[in-house]
Amino acid sequence: MSRSAQAMMANTIRGLAMDAVQKANSGHPGMPMGMADAATVLWTEFLKHNPHNPHWFDRDRFVLSAGHGSMLLYALLYLTGYGLSLDDIKNFRQLGSKTAGHPEYGHAAGIETTTGPLGQGVSNAVGMAIAEKWLGAQFNRPNYQVVDHYTYVICGDGDLMEGISHESLSLAGHLELGKLIVLYDDNEISIDGSTDLSMTEDVLARFAAYGWHTQAIDGHNLTAVQAAVRLAQLETARPSLIACSTLIGFGSPNKAGTASVHGSPLGEEEIKLTKERLEWPQEPFYVPEETLEFGRLAVDAGSQAERQWKELLEGYAAEYPKLAAQFGAVMRDELPEGWEKHIPVFEAGKGMATRASSGKVLEGIVPHVPSLLGGSADLTGSNKTRTSQMKGFQGDNETGNYLYYGVREHGMGAIMNGLALHGGVRPFGGTFLVFSDYMRGAMRLSALMKVPVIYVLTHDSIGLGEDGPTHQPIEHLMSLRLMPGMQVLRPADANEVAVAWQIALKSQGPSCIVLSRQGAPTLDRTVYAPASEAWAGGYVVRDADDPQVILIGTGTELSQALAAAAMLADEGIRARVVSMMSWELFAAQTEAYQESVLPSGVTARVSMEAGATLGWERYVGAKGKAIGLDRFGASAPAEELYKVFGLTAEAMVAAAKELLNA
Amino acid sequence: MSRSAQAMMANTIRGLAMDAVQKANSGHPGMPMGMADAATVLWTEFLKHNPHNPHWFDRDRFVLSAGHGSMLLYALLYLTGYGLSLDDIKNFRQLGSKTAGHPEYGHAAGIETTTGPLGQGVSNAVGMAIAEKWLGAQFNRPNYQVVDHYTYVICGDGDLMEGISHESLSLAGHLELGKLIVLYDDNEISIDGSTDLSMTEDVLARFAAYGWHTQAIDGHNLTAVQAAVRLAQLETARPSLIACSTLIGFGSPNKAGTASVHGSPLGEEEIKLTKERLEWPQEPFYVPEETLEFGRLAVDAGSQAERQWKELLEGYAAEYPKLAAQFGAVMRDELPEGWEKHIPVFEAGKGMATRASSGKVLEGIVPHVPSLLGGSADLTGSNKTRTSQMKGFQGDNETGNYLYYGVREHGMGAIMNGLALHGGVRPFGGTFLVFSDYMRGAMRLSALMKVPVIYVLTHDSIGLGEDGPTHQPIEHLMSLRLMPGMQVLRPADANEVAVAWQIALKSQGPSCIVLSRQGAPTLDRTVYAPASEAWAGGYVVRDADDPQVILIGTGTELSQALAAAAMLADEGIRARVVSMMSWELFAAQTEAYQESVLPSGVTARVSMEAGATLGWERYVGAKGKAIGLDRFGASAPAEELYKVFGLTAEAMVAAAKELLNA
Repeated sequence: MSRSAQAMMANTIRGLAMDAVQKANSGHPGMPMGMADAATVLWTEFLKHNPHNPHWFDRDRFVLSAGHGSMLLYALLYLTGYGLSLDDIKNFRQLGSKTAGHPEYGHAAGIETTTGPLGQGVSNAVGMAIAEKWLGAQFNRPNYQVVDHYTYVICGDGDLMEGISHESLSLAGHLELGKLIVLYDDNEISIDGSTDLSMTEDVLARFAAYGWHTQAIDGHNLTAVQAAVRLAQLETARPSLIACSTLIGFGSPNKAGTASVHGSPLGEEEIKLTKERLEWPQEPFYVPEETLEFGRLAVDAGSQAERQWKELLEGYAAEYPKLAAQFGAVMRDELPEGWEKHIPVFEAGKGMATRASSGKVLEGIVPHVPSLLGGSADLTGSNKTRTSQMKGFQGDNETGNYLYYGVREHGMGAIMNGLALHGGVRPFGGTFLVFSDYMRGAMRLSALMKVPVIYVLTHDSIGLGEDGPTHQPIEHLMSLRLMPGMQVLRPADANEVAVAWQIALKSQGPSCIVLSRQGAPTLDRTVYAPASEAWAGGYVVRDADDPQVILIGTGTELSQALAAAAMLADEGIRARVVSMMSWELFAAQTEAYQESVLPSGVTARVSMEAGATLGWERYVGAKGKAIGLDRFGASAPAEELYKVFGLTAEAMVAAAKELLNA
Repeated sequence: MSRSAQAMMANTIRGLAMDAVQKANSGHPGMPMGMADAATVLWTEFLKHNPHNPHWFDRDRFVLSAGHGSMLLYALLYLTGYGLSLDDIKNFRQLGSKTAGHPEYGHAAGIETTTGPLGQGVSNAVGMAIAEKWLGAQFNRPNYQVVDHYTYVICGDGDLMEGISHESLSLAGHLELGKLIVLYDDNEISIDGSTDLSMTEDVLARFAAYGWHTQAIDGHNLTAVQAAVRLAQLETARPSLIACSTLIGFGSPNKAGTASVHGSPLGEEEIKLTKERLEWPQEPFYVPEETLEFGRLAVDAGSQAERQWKELLEGYAAEYPKLAAQFGAVMRDELPEGWEKHIPVFEAGKGMATRASSGKVLEGIVPHVPSLLGGSADLTGSNKTRTSQMKGFQGDNETGNYLYYGVREHGMGAIMNGLALHGGVRPFGGTFLVFSDYMRGAMRLSALMKVPVIYVLTHDSIGLGEDGPTHQPIEHLMSLRLMPGMQVLRPADANEVAVAWQIALKSQGPSCIVLSRQGAPTLDRTVYAPASEAWAGGYVVRDADDPQVILIGTGTELSQALAAAAMLADEGIRARVVSMMSWELFAAQTEAYQESVLPSGVTARVSMEAGATLGWERYVGAKGKAIGLDRFGASAPAEELYKVFGLTAEAMVAAAKELLNA
């Protein structure tokens, strides 16, 4: 490998980063300039990828966790031939450009995940490495390593300060993810200045404590980088951390090594001086012809590598036709034909907690959807996320299809994003609804990236009882509904739970399945509307001729609405009952359908949901009444709490009558 | 110290924990049974406290971070004489009881913080230890150690798996919090089973990497516990971790050492066997007379200790009268007289970003409110949270009044809770609004505990521009409004910012001050209503005779509303403009006031806020229109984004006219 060609490529990256940030008058030049050397070695000597097919299943995954250094990635994508143009780079941070301020998944080919919020990328990478290991364990056979790639990360101090990095990287050590290799940009600078201001931890010792293989090198020494990555590859039992000591803004005579180069343009004058120092032409966006040629070697090499893999796959298909067919379906993220047949139908009756019916649904489908990789943040028994057949995925059991995430909600969310981004895996993971607060950062990225992660959120109200207000969600349901692109499903009974799982599994984006701790009767669907109508998000469960009042419930509160309707009927008042399982789905229906469920002529409307009422104005209207809970809960048995806080059928009846008499 | 008396006290705790959980048929007996020995040694040999004055300022702070083990704390409070009765313990987890499922701050004397959500307590403790060190550095004088106490914590595996523990405990090491002593219940069990399932990190090595002093002991050996705590006290430069190897559910012949004793009653039969094994009377809630006497020794010892401290304080007051007066005010959490005089008044004009006016307000008041301890999660320059006079609080600068939290939002939130709980400190801390997602767990506890923490949340909309959708909040404003007890303030111009700071500083509970990155004109208050009216949360900024339409704005979008009103006036349409700085404050006004601002007769209402519209139905009503953003943003200059997403005065005008023509 030509070190001089690499050095020139690194300077090209520095120039592009400086110039693009300067032109946009916004961005982060320091990190790309500091990590240009290490990244160049990684991309030109190690990364297995095919720029002309960024979706090649067995490519190495590369994650720029320090997403503010996006120009590093854009420069690499341009130089190695991903179809990003120099004009795209000149359009850095402009409206509609592929080169957004931070790498946005889907905006340009080769961006494996959206990064920027720190700690997320490195945690996504843990998910990708798990996916690789898990799929490899299932599908590889002697002489047929059909899944066999590395996951590389570049991260910074900020990533490692964030708590989420502790969660996911400690777990990565536990799971012995030997093919996860993290290059840590150890530049001793964060936005506020020297890391001495706030961070004196011994990062290498910390990672060693997690069970990682660690190295510390000069990140500007190309040969040292090469040797370190090679060593990291040779270490197969432990994930690897390579601390690259670098100078942020390398090359800038007055700003290198300071926070001023982190998140601001260098300024024309300093760019001039930097190019002089680097012995680089002053021409903006200068790219030497030979560097472009050197970078674009990736195209042929990548095509050839993929071709070889395809040949391998052909041999595999000949020797293991059934397995190869399965593998093909997995790579295409297809659900096996007929999987829905295994969803149980629940008989009407006393019923069970919706978390319990969720467990039964999983019991039915997990054996038939092999891409499902379940898990929980140490609440397995409570979330009912593990079926009787599932085994733990562990260092010594790589085919296990259940992840014991530990008490690591945020890490779980980001790891699930990584699993889904890798492909071939449909992740679901459980915690209590209230602890969605701990992982909102990751959930928001599921929504932004539109990845099909399923969050199983149980203990969804004061109905969890004695654990008290710290464990009782109030604002969470509505807060999740507020998140653009997040599909929130709060089924009311076992058969709605079955529908919710079907919706979630057929979705292209993320879903929250919100479930109760306490029991919920299974509705008699010969009396009430079929649960299949829940596909519309909201539907009429029980109707009356020419209804005077509409009662709306979600989840376990639908029972109160039904009881209230019966009580009103006894008094000759005609009430319709609507189950509003998913606001997003209901909002996606035609106006005509929405009007048929909630006719504008009926303004007497009462909703009940054991959570915040803010937002319910949308469905009860100005003249309706939303019953809920706009205060924290309390520690006591669930039934008492429902009574004390007025979440009862009687309260709905009273509200309905008041509205009708108003 | 009598080891046999301690052993008997430990068994008393075990008995009470088992019996209370059994009676409630709910709770967590395993942890109290496992940590009863270590806790007894800590409370009877070390803890400096006065059960008859739980608010004694210089008491040691004790935090049960593993809050599910609440029965351990309740038993200790009862036995040492805090006024908790045996009946309170028998009422464990019942409605209105002092003994809630998890320790709830304010429910019973001696509960220093609300715990249960894991990782929070140990992080609160970091805040308490910072407060002690900071106040000590300011007020202690030779021979007068008026602030001189330890902060003790009992935490479990779950606390240490959570990312927040990484954030706050790494910072604790950096800040050299030598008087923070953490007893880690190293019982190798979490809810899902053995910690082997998910956690193999070397916890001691991890803490050593953070710069902590570490020890590992047998947590059932009373003498070993005594020696370890003493050693930890002697180590003054580093915080201390004592890993106490324990058996969860100690004493239970069939369940000790298993997950089954973590979160469920033992059952009558197993309790019987356990009491036999412990050679303990079968009588439920049995408390030996001599144990009660032994425990209650704390009352006299505590009174005496506080008396001595008061004598010290008298000498201090004689020698340092001015300092003593200041210290007195600090202990009473009083703001100095006349501090508001130093809030700047901003002249009408071009104005500045509201984050910039916030910086100027701080510049004015910080020198006059010495209890203010500012900080930022590594966004100091962006959040404008550090004034020119503030210096970093560091191991070698203990009087510094600015905390460099590093990129640790969640830790910052929980540390601020601890600072406020300690007393004598008014913390404020900054990050971007979008990263409130990373610290919602801590923010919710600020709200639940009603502690006066101030969250400074800047870059409050797409107006931050080029950083793109990962950094642009959409759902956050409304999500924070949904949190019970959280006061959200989004000022529209510099003078509203000044009001917002006054409101926040005079509040007993937490506030979010939500600020813009981009400029906002300073309104001419001789033309518009005075900013002081913002104390009501919402007020009429610009009126018209007999208004036909009401335009509502918050933050920077108030400018659009004012421009729209002027444009409508040109067309002869009479528009009122309302600034809705704080929904919570507005909702707290009389109905008459609310009606005077938003008369029900005027149903043509248009709101604009650069965030989610869900919830705005509350103020625009069924016939109004909420303009906002129900999708993710984009990376581009701010002005372009406002135009592209239709957040313009023109859009408000169009909406108003449409409503009037409807």
